[in-house]
Amino acid sequence: MMDRPRQLTLALDASQASGSLALFEDEALLYASYFNVSITHSETLMPQLDNALKLTGFQPAEIGKILLANGPGSFTGLRIGLATAKGIAYANRCPLKAFSSLQLAALPRMNCGKNIISVIDARMKEVYAALWDEELNLLHGPEVCPPAEILNWDFGDAWLIGDGSHILPADERLKSLHPTALGYVPAIGLYTLDALLGADSVYDFDALADLQPFYLRDFSAQIKRNG
Amino acid sequence: MMDRPRQLTLALDASQASGSLALFEDEALLYASYFNVSITHSETLMPQLDNALKLTGFQPAEIGKILLANGPGSFTGLRIGLATAKGIAYANRCPLKAFSSLQLAALPRMNCGKNIISVIDARMKEVYAALWDEELNLLHGPEVCPPAEILNWDFGDAWLIGDGSHILPADERLKSLHPTALGYVPAIGLYTLDALLGADSVYDFDALADLQPFYLRDFSAQIKRNG
Repeated sequence: MMDRPRQLTLALDASQASGSLALFEDEALLYASYFNVSITHSETLMPQLDNALKLTGFQPAEIGKILLANGPGSFTGLRIGLATAKGIAYANRCPLKAFSSLQLAALPRMNCGKNIISVIDARMKEVYAALWDEELNLLHGPEVCPPAEILNWDFGDAWLIGDGSHILPADERLKSLHPTALGYVPAIGLYTLDALLGADSVYDFDALADLQPFYLRDFSAQIKRNG
Repeated sequence: MMDRPRQLTLALDASQASGSLALFEDEALLYASYFNVSITHSETLMPQLDNALKLTGFQPAEIGKILLANGPGSFTGLRIGLATAKGIAYANRCPLKAFSSLQLAALPRMNCGKNIISVIDARMKEVYAALWDEELNLLHGPEVCPPAEILNWDFGDAWLIGDGSHILPADERLKSLHPTALGYVPAIGLYTLDALLGADSVYDFDALADLQPFYLRDFSAQIKRNG
């Protein structure tokens, strides 16, 4: 009997100002990194991936599955993350699965007894936000809106989480933790989202080529052109 | 008026089979990595730290504070982590603060409405374990004991967390999450433990020289010699 070949999964989040990646061999987390540096994803992403592969002793050609945080978030980051992921998936003929950055942001407070509002800083005095139940089912949104507008949502008691949390006005119905208390690296969570939500997938060139970032709003240049 | 110099904090956890480190500039997390690889901490720790410093643009001499997970855990890992941390603290004349690896393991379920049992695999069919309330106050332990013994503790409903969780017999009073759902990198959490628990500290050569790993049991060689 032959052993089932082991699967190397790359999880990637360049959808925000900070980025992260993780490598899994089957279910085991081998490596993860988080980087919030002033240089851009175009300069950090490939060196960080290369460092991860070298440390764990794998070749790029061995990546057999890619999980990606696909927005909403930073326009350029989303493009770089998706293009990098598509490039590797195309070269390796391996599946690429994309997940909502807002659902990913909500994950650390899953099953903690309350609804969850995940909030990402959208700049220009707006946030991306969504409301989830404690099982991560979507209850409201996702929306891009001024922070105060979220307080009109019907959320009951809720956890507030995500890098845009601090932008919201204080509200006693919302409970948040210091971000470092969570110690959370988003790319690691993509593995859980895939286990919870992901259907099995195979390499599909047309689906890969068609996959687009989830912007939720027109990007600034387009707004200027249209407005 | 002069600007307050910014403080670079290095957080380090080599207390387990896996390791992690994080760099903070004041309150901001700049970089974190987690590595669970078959080579030892003696080979991974310095290259990972060097990679982190290069990416974030700092020199080793700029590390101004060190936070360390100090066991219980792997005998050799604890020695390497502590020796590395002491070496940098001695060279830079900066404070080194040590925290319990069991309290660190409990942190991701802090303020989630239940007590928390944190469990670390101690090998030889034993675990290191402690019981905390949801504010991370110690209620019982820490102990090194056979896994089943923990079920006799008076814990009410509790979260079960840590890399030894899966060794415990199933018990309906205990609730756990898939580890990747937490997406947790321990070194990041050291910053929160320091903020919650740490007194201010200064460089103190005698305290630094005296600092010992927290083993909780005699190491194997000593057991053999004494037994």
